[in-house]
Amino acid sequence: MQEFSLIETYFAQSSTGTNQSNVVLGIGDDAAILDVPPNQQLLVSTDTLVSGVHFFSDVAPGDLAYKALAVNLSDMAAMGATPAWVSLALTMPKMPPKWVSQFAHSFMQTCKEYGVELIGGDTTSGPLSVTITIHGLRPHEKVIRRGGAQVDDGIYVSGTLGDAAAGLNILRANNENEQDGLDATHRFLIQRLLKPTPRVLLGEQLGGVATSCLDLSDGLAGDIKHILRASSVGAQIEVDALPQSSAVLKYTTKQQAHEYALTGGDDYELCFTVSDANAQKLEQIAKNCGVSITKVGFITEPEKGLSFVSNRQPYTVPQSGYEHEF
Amino acid sequence: MQEFSLIETYFAQSSTGTNQSNVVLGIGDDAAILDVPPNQQLLVSTDTLVSGVHFFSDVAPGDLAYKALAVNLSDMAAMGATPAWVSLALTMPKMPPKWVSQFAHSFMQTCKEYGVELIGGDTTSGPLSVTITIHGLRPHEKVIRRGGAQVDDGIYVSGTLGDAAAGLNILRANNENEQDGLDATHRFLIQRLLKPTPRVLLGEQLGGVATSCLDLSDGLAGDIKHILRASSVGAQIEVDALPQSSAVLKYTTKQQAHEYALTGGDDYELCFTVSDANAQKLEQIAKNCGVSITKVGFITEPEKGLSFVSNRQPYTVPQSGYEHEF
Repeated sequence: MQEFSLIETYFAQSSTGTNQSNVVLGIGDDAAILDVPPNQQLLVSTDTLVSGVHFFSDVAPGDLAYKALAVNLSDMAAMGATPAWVSLALTMPKMPPKWVSQFAHSFMQTCKEYGVELIGGDTTSGPLSVTITIHGLRPHEKVIRRGGAQVDDGIYVSGTLGDAAAGLNILRANNENEQDGLDATHRFLIQRLLKPTPRVLLGEQLGGVATSCLDLSDGLAGDIKHILRASSVGAQIEVDALPQSSAVLKYTTKQQAHEYALTGGDDYELCFTVSDANAQKLEQIAKNCGVSITKVGFITEPEKGLSFVSNRQPYTVPQSGYEHEF
Repeated sequence: MQEFSLIETYFAQSSTGTNQSNVVLGIGDDAAILDVPPNQQLLVSTDTLVSGVHFFSDVAPGDLAYKALAVNLSDMAAMGATPAWVSLALTMPKMPPKWVSQFAHSFMQTCKEYGVELIGGDTTSGPLSVTITIHGLRPHEKVIRRGGAQVDDGIYVSGTLGDAAAGLNILRANNENEQDGLDATHRFLIQRLLKPTPRVLLGEQLGGVATSCLDLSDGLAGDIKHILRASSVGAQIEVDALPQSSAVLKYTTKQQAHEYALTGGDDYELCFTVSDANAQKLEQIAKNCGVSITKVGFITEPEKGLSFVSNRQPYTVPQSGYEHEF
């Protein structure tokens, strides 16, 4: 199948389902034409998933499409932005039409679910990888950056941490994507790896409330440093306060679960800071969004650096957050 | 080297050289924050180059960085837009620091040359490929789309056609990137393949003058169809009028040179339509931009379809424009 027909057959036809009135021209010219509403800022982020690095090569096409979008949506959530448009660069070897159609179906379904429109992209022949550039919109005063954390702000995370790392461990021990014969606990943890929930609604509501925010892709212990560096502050994390699912605590020891939360990747929960004055507002936001929110520490003076405590004792994080090696 | 240090060492440090005052926040958060000036539309395009598909695996890193940017800049030129910001998704196997530094140097140099700012991206481990998403700006009435061609408009192209296809042929016959012992003609043609000139200035000046425009990436015979389809018109192309360099005519027969121009890829010249009333204005634009512009045919009623003539006789195009096979 040739390039233009591929895009048109599987993607372009489905792209009319959203209500993005600010898309003047979507797929089909040398570039998309977009109107950014007055008083809104434009947020842009790019993430690539590579076969064998970010997902197993026999991944289900629908799961791949979902996750590629989810990690990009999560970046918008971390900025407090409303996702609007995505470009898709899909590189793949010769794939059966069924694979492509399942990928496209899941992709367009997820776009619809989050009110995002596919505005263009490129399909090329080569080793399987997916690069998405996502665009979000938000009034200036509602955008959340990493650099606004203040001393004594509480540090919060959404959902539960460490599930995805446990899920990865299970998949590795069970012939990768072979999930037959696994119990409900294992399946839950695997789904948390394959289908993370981007916290878009929460991110939107945190705008104007959180003083800083990011999404957890490489583990709390490593990711929090980005906030500390950008805000020129320190932090203390209470390890026993880390929210962990009953599934991960059933699957492994408490100690191992802590490690997963602190150094495991792929949770895509939000980590953010909020002043005590806004703590009640935050409670209401959590209720509005139907997401649990847990205080896991507080911001300190910069000279105190980053410290972890457990049972009122200093706690040493076993290893630093995951980063791609070159 | 780890992901964050890679970006910061090679790219982020150099990214302050442009004068894009509308970049509120560039590299370093979950997303870039951008201000789109009032009354400007946003143009977005994405192109991927894959090793072994779009370039030889032993490509010089500087040439790869240049070309990846050039093909994206060319998309902005085709819309009449002014390039503003780029995101870079660079996937590569373990590369020596020198390779990465040469890639980054050429990338940032080219950004500077075209007044474009690197606003973010992703570096991942995997088979070599480069995906760039480019953003351009332009007032609404100056954006050029494919769908505006009118019956009797002249069809024009910039520069010369077919050089890149000849260059590819030479490289294939000479152990790929091995260029020692080649004469000036061969070198010129190879450079036209490796270092196409995006016609950004021309594209900007064509806004409000050209009725349609695209850039030639797959050969005139195939690419012109996109204008015809979008505009619901036909076209007649005068094959003998195709502008061809003295180099390509020295390298091969006239007949083969025609084929290169019509069905060879990678020229990245602009093809556009202009009404006779604006023909003089066009001449002035060509002078302003220092680019040769050649009339190669005219737009016809849709029922006449697409036809080619040579020596007043119907001419049959040997093969259709290049498209990536899946």
